[in-house]
Amino acid sequence: MTIISMTTDFGLQDGFVGVMKGIILGIAPQAQIVDLSHQVPPQNVSQGAYLLRRHAQYFPAGSVHLAVIDPGVGTQRRPLAARLGGQYFVAPDNGLLYPLMQAVGQSQQEARFVHLDQERYWLPQVSRTFHGRDIFAPAAAYLALGVPLQELGSVIDDPQALQLPEPQPTSSGWQAHVTSIDRFGNLAIDLPAGHIVNPAAMLIQIGGVQITGLVHTYGDRQVGELVALSDSAGYLEIAEVNGSAARRLNAEVGDLVEVLVRSSTPG
Amino acid sequence: MTIISMTTDFGLQDGFVGVMKGIILGIAPQAQIVDLSHQVPPQNVSQGAYLLRRHAQYFPAGSVHLAVIDPGVGTQRRPLAARLGGQYFVAPDNGLLYPLMQAVGQSQQEARFVHLDQERYWLPQVSRTFHGRDIFAPAAAYLALGVPLQELGSVIDDPQALQLPEPQPTSSGWQAHVTSIDRFGNLAIDLPAGHIVNPAAMLIQIGGVQITGLVHTYGDRQVGELVALSDSAGYLEIAEVNGSAARRLNAEVGDLVEVLVRSSTPG
Amino acid sequence: MTIISMTTDFGLQDGFVGVMKGIILGIAPQAQIVDLSHQVPPQNVSQGAYLLRRHAQYFPAGSVHLAVIDPGVGTQRRPLAARLGGQYFVAPDNGLLYPLMQAVGQSQQEARFVHLDQERYWLPQVSRTFHGRDIFAPAAAYLALGVPLQELGSVIDDPQALQLPEPQPTSSGWQAHVTSIDRFGNLAIDLPAGHIVNPAAMLIQIGGVQITGLVHTYGDRQVGELVALSDSAGYLEIAEVNGSAARRLNAEVGDLVEVLVRSSTPG
Repeated sequence: MTIISMTTDFGLQDGFVGVMKGIILGIAPQAQIVDLSHQVPPQNVSQGAYLLRRHAQYFPAGSVHLAVIDPGVGTQRRPLAARLGGQYFVAPDNGLLYPLMQAVGQSQQEARFVHLDQERYWLPQVSRTFHGRDIFAPAAAYLALGVPLQELGSVIDDPQALQLPEPQPTSSGWQAHVTSIDRFGNLAIDLPAGHIVNPAAMLIQIGGVQITGLVHTYGDRQVGELVALSDSAGYLEIAEVNGSAARRLNAEVGDLVEVLVRSSTPG
Repeated sequence: MTIISMTTDFGLQDGFVGVMKGIILGIAPQAQIVDLSHQVPPQNVSQGAYLLRRHAQYFPAGSVHLAVIDPGVGTQRRPLAARLGGQYFVAPDNGLLYPLMQAVGQSQQEARFVHLDQERYWLPQVSRTFHGRDIFAPAAAYLALGVPLQELGSVIDDPQALQLPEPQPTSSGWQAHVTSIDRFGNLAIDLPAGHIVNPAAMLIQIGGVQITGLVHTYGDRQVGELVALSDSAGYLEIAEVNGSAARRLNAEVGDLVEVLVRSSTPG
Repeated sequence: MTIISMTTDFGLQDGFVGVMKGIILGIAPQAQIVDLSHQVPPQNVSQGAYLLRRHAQYFPAGSVHLAVIDPGVGTQRRPLAARLGGQYFVAPDNGLLYPLMQAVGQSQQEARFVHLDQERYWLPQVSRTFHGRDIFAPAAAYLALGVPLQELGSVIDDPQALQLPEPQPTSSGWQAHVTSIDRFGNLAIDLPAGHIVNPAAMLIQIGGVQITGLVHTYGDRQVGELVALSDSAGYLEIAEVNGSAARRLNAEVGDLVEVLVRSSTPG
């Protein structure tokens, strides 16, 4: 009853995700497949990496996370599988797993990578444009069945890095970034909310607008008000109560956010 | 093998639904999770309530329905679980379950509510903005495992009401409303089709257009024609054959619909 | 643990798919349900037929494919079930299964159809507008449980045909068609890539633009370049590297594509 989560940029209209599930269940009929997201913007490895880093930790130990955002499909880029902390991952070698690996490394957990070079665990015919179906889905299914990681490929220690923007300390706080925008138009910011020691004194500047202080949750303010709060992953979030901060601020992923931590002593 | 259905306004892009499934399957690995809808318009409790009232009855007895449209997350609004008829429900206390409870009450079935105040059934750390993951998903999973409702929280008898518009009788028929619009652009109307005793004599006025009589199904008329019929839930529906009545009539949820039941005797 | 795949034009917002799954799991609690697509354009039987022909073959023998694109719901059109090759199918009799049946016939595999006329395998109450829930979902569930095909209905041998466009030979190659456009804006063409004996000499004309030669995969060329290649189903595909060929060429399903196989001997 192993869980296999799926994260792709395939969308849901074309059957690409469904056919991968058909392959998985043909190999591992007992697997419990969970969609994490198939709406990652096409070829956007960073957005896929954020999703995995944010959500994978909530899955039970032994889960398999299958992630295919793969602009380099069919080229020399390696197909990989990994064990990070107590979970398994299958993904192309383009940095998709790197931010998660860094997070796992910070908590002193083990990271092990293999290059999926054992063709007996691929489909008999491998296309040049759909390794999600032909290589990655079977690998996830065999991991769910209990095939050891090292059976699937040769151990490597040089997975492709992916450097996401990091918040930069400034004289008065941080210069941070919008890392993702959810369906509600809430903006996820790359600054951990725990860095803000005096929440009442915080001032955020984004798109010419200022937001003061951290609230606990949306309902603490009136509908239509812009608020800053700690999101469910522990990072700073900017939201409009019952509205869309993204639309209100015309914000996009990558936008700069000035976080000013004003002195609490009068100047 | 208990079914857990999910109804949210979380969309499918951000991983919120997937991570809830990871939590559920970590607690109840045998659960069969079914998506009812994650495309409820953001914060639209009424649309979620319509979905539950319409579809829940088709699930087997003992199913658990997990519904999270929750603009009040993190405030004093209570998280609830309920037994309505033979099924279980988990939702915030904002009226989401109220129309369904009324329907169940009409059929003399039992309704029982608890306030999910037993923290041992929550995740160890509860965020202020994602109770779907931290409180509601675990509650649904424990119900699926067979934990009794009363174990999860204190019995309450005052769940929040939600009054949906009702069709109003007029001298010549009813003033009804568009309650929802589906992917095909079909308009669901809040008048039970069974109220129309003489279908051939019915006249509908909506958006300056008149529709006469009830057809049995779309294919009874030509492509492009506007028709009225009984939908698959027994309510009045307005459709354009192989087209979109919503686009044709520029209709929106809440629009008024005049249903005239003309005298069958000549005046 | 039989797999039931689902292909519909119901979308994911309205709960129609979810309620079908509730019906299925009430009858066959062990079924593994997989979404192939619910984003087929409304009433577009051809696009549903392409999806089934392309993807069904990758599912394990014994799988059940439930396909409901059904503009004729509630009319005299017959509800069908079929065994094609080693798999089962449930669909309205409107040609949805015909292209797949032709493909199976080419490989000399058995095809058998029944008319779902045994009411004891329907829901007790059958609506006129949602046979997906009331007739097709139960049929798929009973097939997954192991009920023999002939129990569900009377054998027929005249399923409705559906003639999809076919590539036409010309003096210099083929006149082919865009059969579908995926989320990435890649164009699927109805010409098997294997027909092109000398890939380097091929010239494609579409929308006033020329593309020369076949590449192996997207990454063989620079970002933004238009390329032709063999897709993961073995058909010709036109793509823009890390972009959208559909947007670039303003292409639509049904557009003509001239495939010129230039003489390899100098003229």
